[in-house]
Amino acid sequence: IDTKLPKVGTTIFSVMSQLALEHKAVNLGQGFPDFEPPQGLRDALARAMNEGRNQYAPMHGTAPLREQIAAKTERMYGHRPDVDAEITVTSGATEALFAAIAAVVRAGEEVIVFDPSYDSYEPAIELQGAKAVHIPLIAPAFSVDWQRVRDALTPRTRMILINSPHNPSGAVLSAADLEELAAIVRDTKIVVLSDEVYEHIVYDGRQHESVLRHPELAARSIVVSSFGKTYHCTGWKLGYAVAPKSLTAEFRKVHQYLTFCSFHPAQVAFAEFLASDPQHYLELPAFYQAKRDRFRALLAPSRFKLLDVPGGYFQLVDYSAIRDEDDLAFSRWLVEQGGVAAIPLTPFCETAPGTRLLRLCFAKSDATMEAAAERLCKL
Amino acid sequence: IDTKLPKVGTTIFSVMSQLALEHKAVNLGQGFPDFEPPQGLRDALARAMNEGRNQYAPMHGTAPLREQIAAKTERMYGHRPDVDAEITVTSGATEALFAAIAAVVRAGEEVIVFDPSYDSYEPAIELQGAKAVHIPLIAPAFSVDWQRVRDALTPRTRMILINSPHNPSGAVLSAADLEELAAIVRDTKIVVLSDEVYEHIVYDGRQHESVLRHPELAARSIVVSSFGKTYHCTGWKLGYAVAPKSLTAEFRKVHQYLTFCSFHPAQVAFAEFLASDPQHYLELPAFYQAKRDRFRALLAPSRFKLLDVPGGYFQLVDYSAIRDEDDLAFSRWLVEQGGVAAIPLTPFCETAPGTRLLRLCFAKSDATMEAAAERLCKL
Ligand SMILES: CSCCC(=O)C(=O)O
Ligand SMILES: CSCCC(=O)C(=O)O
Repeated sequence: IDTKLPKVGTTIFSVMSQLALEHKAVNLGQGFPDFEPPQGLRDALARAMNEGRNQYAPMHGTAPLREQIAAKTERMYGHRPDVDAEITVTSGATEALFAAIAAVVRAGEEVIVFDPSYDSYEPAIELQGAKAVHIPLIAPAFSVDWQRVRDALTPRTRMILINSPHNPSGAVLSAADLEELAAIVRDTKIVVLSDEVYEHIVYDGRQHESVLRHPELAARSIVVSSFGKTYHCTGWKLGYAVAPKSLTAEFRKVHQYLTFCSFHPAQVAFAEFLASDPQHYLELPAFYQAKRDRFRALLAPSRFKLLDVPGGYFQLVDYSAIRDEDDLAFSRWLVEQGGVAAIPLTPFCETAPGTRLLRLCFAKSDATMEAAAERLCKL
Repeated sequence: IDTKLPKVGTTIFSVMSQLALEHKAVNLGQGFPDFEPPQGLRDALARAMNEGRNQYAPMHGTAPLREQIAAKTERMYGHRPDVDAEITVTSGATEALFAAIAAVVRAGEEVIVFDPSYDSYEPAIELQGAKAVHIPLIAPAFSVDWQRVRDALTPRTRMILINSPHNPSGAVLSAADLEELAAIVRDTKIVVLSDEVYEHIVYDGRQHESVLRHPELAARSIVVSSFGKTYHCTGWKLGYAVAPKSLTAEFRKVHQYLTFCSFHPAQVAFAEFLASDPQHYLELPAFYQAKRDRFRALLAPSRFKLLDVPGGYFQLVDYSAIRDEDDLAFSRWLVEQGGVAAIPLTPFCETAPGTRLLRLCFAKSDATMEAAAERLCKL
């Protein structure tokens, strides 16, 4: 069979998790915590199963969960989406990203993405017969050069896909960035797709600049978030999309035939848990900042150079003092010989970035971080 | 925003479930049981959550669950798919159907579907820029006229989508049907997509003719099934696809960017439950046949004419003795005035079928069936 996705192999996250198992490496690759979701949440899920919540959920998510999402969005960003018409619960942020792209982007159109960026964006765009136009972020802070975005616009530009806090770099967009973006899309038909799955994980007193804080952008954006990243349960595959009514209507047309609805007992559990502990996520910045700082302290004696981490739960490190080879080769060597699985940046880019950077996940227990650091400091 | 899916509204299943709530109608519309999955399965899921299985599952499903699927497929159909390369766990059969279509079908190609058929097929095809070619099934048994299929073939035909036991009619394909299909696709590039979510629900001593029983077809088919339909947990959204290695490779390229993986604790729970009770599904034919027969007996005094039900958990009824109006109008009237939600056939067809048929779900407790029958017998 001739492939529709000639550039796609198995995602780097699966490849690295598999290699980590094979080589008994400490897995700092794929982005997931090695600690558990709150016990209250797990208990609520078990209760939901035993209270008969095992059949289809409403296609767009249960009403109490959408209520909680609306309330949180208002508290955090001063924007209250309509519970019925502007919120859709999805089977993880990945499904939401795919549905958003499939609902909006047509064959022959273009989507602006930034390099490096999450590896699901481009295949989702290509499956629409559309083209991803890659704009490199500017080292060392992985900031956006908005003039380059302006230069890349064509009459076919249909969407700009942003991601803050940024995976893999941790870069965060500022209010000024959002102003630039708003000026660019004003009076165009461009839809903004904003991947904000790390929205609650920002450091050093920063505020997350959701596009939902910016009314002009909120009116033309699909914002995607993730319960898995916020509540330490990436394997529960629950996320959501917030978008104005007309965009949500198109989004749901795709969502209802992509997965129809998401695991019902988890929706019941989250609605209950969020009602009883609505601001659990306010603990996240301090929680992850302590991990970030601990991890950086552990790596300080190593020969890796540590880049700044404004948000997210990944640490980029420059390994050029250790070996002079590209990041694919180095990450292979590291998992096989060094006993640590990390993620190279090449799969996040249109062309090999030419940098000597790897991504390490620090959403890990002290013991895991120490075991990894011991190995990394030997190199 | 201009829509990519002009023909698509909200799926009839959501519309009817909503109307059922509003009018306090007995809901025999959307296809889900009103009884629960086995307690052992729910307990296993709760244990999995408390044993740290809350992060991403492997992209293609956990190995023990794929082992169970391979073993069951071998026991049932004499075909053992490769555990690593030919089985993919999905977020429900709906995701599997979408991923199969997106992986195989290109813009400008054609997919043969039968009318009536499940409402997600056509939008998934249209989103590829491809065309669904509708072949009506032949009343009263909803059988396939293979000559009509032959006549509909063009050089652009890329896929034939079959569904047995059939939703909404309950019709089942015979071994002779599979022979016809095999002769049609032989020496072509046509892929068969076989929706077998009701595989375990066949009546009166029939055997389910999976395409996996037919080596020539198995070599070019993607077969989709559902844990939700078999284990009474439609809201858990777990399904899978079996396909030869080359098709699975393409399927996974899409699946990994559609949802990446499915709810992890449920995969652990099913693997454990199936290992301890591997043939639970063998009880299903007798279990549902008793329901079918009970439901038919309850409706015998009504003015509905009952069609035969060889498989699945839906009863088609002819309402022409009650009102002379199309099925959309009648199903509206029935939920609002008659107190019973049912599914019309028009949304399953390219053009209104002109029949006077409604679909009623009998995957229900005795009490629910009796309450519905009491109302239906009054009409
Ligand atoms: C879906 S696997 C990838 C998880 C993730 O978000 C990451 O590691 O970047
Ligand atoms: C995904 S909702 C529809 C459920 C179903 O299979 C049906 O009612 O036909």
